[in-house]
Amino acid sequence: VSSPADTGHLVLIDQTRLPGEVMELRCRTVQEVWQAIRQLSVRGAPAIGVAAAYGVCLAPHDPQYQEMDPIASVHAACDYLATSRPTAVNLFWALDRMREVAAQTGAGGLDAAFALPADRPALCRALIDEAQRIAQLDRETCAAIGRHGADLLVDLPVGAGILTHCNAGALATAGDGTALAVVYELARRGKRPHVWVDETRPLLQGARLTTWELMQRGIDCTLICDSMAPLVLRDGRVGAVVTGADRIAANGDVANKVGTYGLAVQADVHGVPFYVAAPHTTFDLHLPEGSQIPIEMRPDAEITAGMGTMTAPAGVACLNPAFDVTPARLIRGLITDRGAITTLDQGTIAATIAAERG
Amino acid sequence: VSSPADTGHLVLIDQTRLPGEVMELRCRTVQEVWQAIRQLSVRGAPAIGVAAAYGVCLAPHDPQYQEMDPIASVHAACDYLATSRPTAVNLFWALDRMREVAAQTGAGGLDAAFALPADRPALCRALIDEAQRIAQLDRETCAAIGRHGADLLVDLPVGAGILTHCNAGALATAGDGTALAVVYELARRGKRPHVWVDETRPLLQGARLTTWELMQRGIDCTLICDSMAPLVLRDGRVGAVVTGADRIAANGDVANKVGTYGLAVQADVHGVPFYVAAPHTTFDLHLPEGSQIPIEMRPDAEITAGMGTMTAPAGVACLNPAFDVTPARLIRGLITDRGAITTLDQGTIAATIAAERG
Repeated sequence: VSSPADTGHLVLIDQTRLPGEVMELRCRTVQEVWQAIRQLSVRGAPAIGVAAAYGVCLAPHDPQYQEMDPIASVHAACDYLATSRPTAVNLFWALDRMREVAAQTGAGGLDAAFALPADRPALCRALIDEAQRIAQLDRETCAAIGRHGADLLVDLPVGAGILTHCNAGALATAGDGTALAVVYELARRGKRPHVWVDETRPLLQGARLTTWELMQRGIDCTLICDSMAPLVLRDGRVGAVVTGADRIAANGDVANKVGTYGLAVQADVHGVPFYVAAPHTTFDLHLPEGSQIPIEMRPDAEITAGMGTMTAPAGVACLNPAFDVTPARLIRGLITDRGAITTLDQGTIAATIAAERG
Repeated sequence: VSSPADTGHLVLIDQTRLPGEVMELRCRTVQEVWQAIRQLSVRGAPAIGVAAAYGVCLAPHDPQYQEMDPIASVHAACDYLATSRPTAVNLFWALDRMREVAAQTGAGGLDAAFALPADRPALCRALIDEAQRIAQLDRETCAAIGRHGADLLVDLPVGAGILTHCNAGALATAGDGTALAVVYELARRGKRPHVWVDETRPLLQGARLTTWELMQRGIDCTLICDSMAPLVLRDGRVGAVVTGADRIAANGDVANKVGTYGLAVQADVHGVPFYVAAPHTTFDLHLPEGSQIPIEMRPDAEITAGMGTMTAPAGVACLNPAFDVTPARLIRGLITDRGAITTLDQGTIAATIAAERG
């Protein structure tokens, strides 16, 4: 995700093309950013938040909103971008921050009595500053998650296996990732982790993105089908499972890429600790528990024709939830930028997450 | 699988092309049959046995063995076909039967003193008769499995969900299948089962074959990714899990398509009964337990380029076991052509399986 400050558009790596092609996607309008999020060209809860924040910066110049006051265009863009995907809460958090910037700029710059338009350049500058702050915060957050995770896993032997699902790495954030930030920090500390990568059906984020990231950084990894994770756990090859999250409820229930729940059950049965790494912005403390997290249902074609080839009969019925919810009782610890939480209850979580930091 | 009796060659449906194309594969030599088994054009433990038996019938006419006595060619073909795939035991069972036919024919037809060649037409006739008996036995076996399974699941409510993995249907046998024979029999008895089909990575036998079979027969089904099965089980949508098997040890441990072990763990955790349907020829009573079953490792490309598109970085390390072993303690019952076994121990299993029937 690169800043639109100088170019007037947002440049993303189109993750749907990886690892075959490293292709840039240029978004010139809010709608193009919405599309990029919807079709998963940018994915991963933190990266979606950053991309949406930059997307809002395009609103005051977007022909679609040209009849509107620039501040109204920001609110309209936020409303629209909020409909791109329902589960990851970082999206809504980032949009709320952008709305607030617009509101503050508007309060100072818009003279209601004369119905003067807001000072467009000042508004644009303020929006870009805020989006850059969100991206910078995400980079710092990833680094902090890496440190807290590596501290928590200090007893992991050198060369230990770490199993992960989906992609919770640099491609999912503006920084080093969440789950993979822990891996990268362990590697920096000389732990030489070996990562077992679930391919992560249907869209193969593990096969396409996580292995690519790990190989680029020289981290040992082995790709497996999701259905093979139980064998790897049973055979004692894994010291810890670490995944990311898309939304975490107040009680510690975690929504993450579909397959995470089953993996957590397997880790539990096989006595392997299961950790979730996520920034504090992924917590939704207003939701008492995970059953209230909205789960996005995605098109059948992701299952039946995911690789461009039809691999199931035409017209077959499918069920394709993009996420599932792992109950807190299956989670040994939540690794956040504000510290690791190993007693998962509403009080402990709120005390760690809700605390404002300097 | 159609008989080579009249045509001098073996005709198979190439299952690697389904469901996109229904393409016939003609095997004229033993090596072509070996290839068809190795590359999974024919797959499913019982179907592999039937195809191999017909393959042996080609040996006396195969140019590769032309310098050999026809009986020696049969033994050479059996030795060679036995190397095609290591896990499914029906293959070895069928080849043993074919060897015995050759030995008997040889004993009668070959005059050692004069070193006369065996009576080639008589040998060929005997081989084809035996291969047809094996195929016919398999058809009867499937029907019996269906009846015993439907009897066992008599309490399943109308419209109940049945979850299956891989393809243990008509495409895997000469008859109606094993796990799916139970489904078809339940449908005949008016139970209107709804089948949840695991897509079954890496080769998608569930997505490509099981849904195709079920839809052709008008059975309701829903395709899911393997990683979604835990959700479907958790949400109470499944009354029973039924899979096939590639080899069953004397204690009831079952080798079956990779992913079966994880599924059995999930069924256990979620309180859903897990059944395995298989002919008596899939039991290997010489093996005390499942850990001794050889597990075939298959090429990485099945995971990284399974749909013809490269979906992982070049050179990524993979682990690709074709099968896994489910311990007997996770299995509620074995459904065989000789009856259902619901107390899984060596004695009960031997009593049911080893008993010769009229």
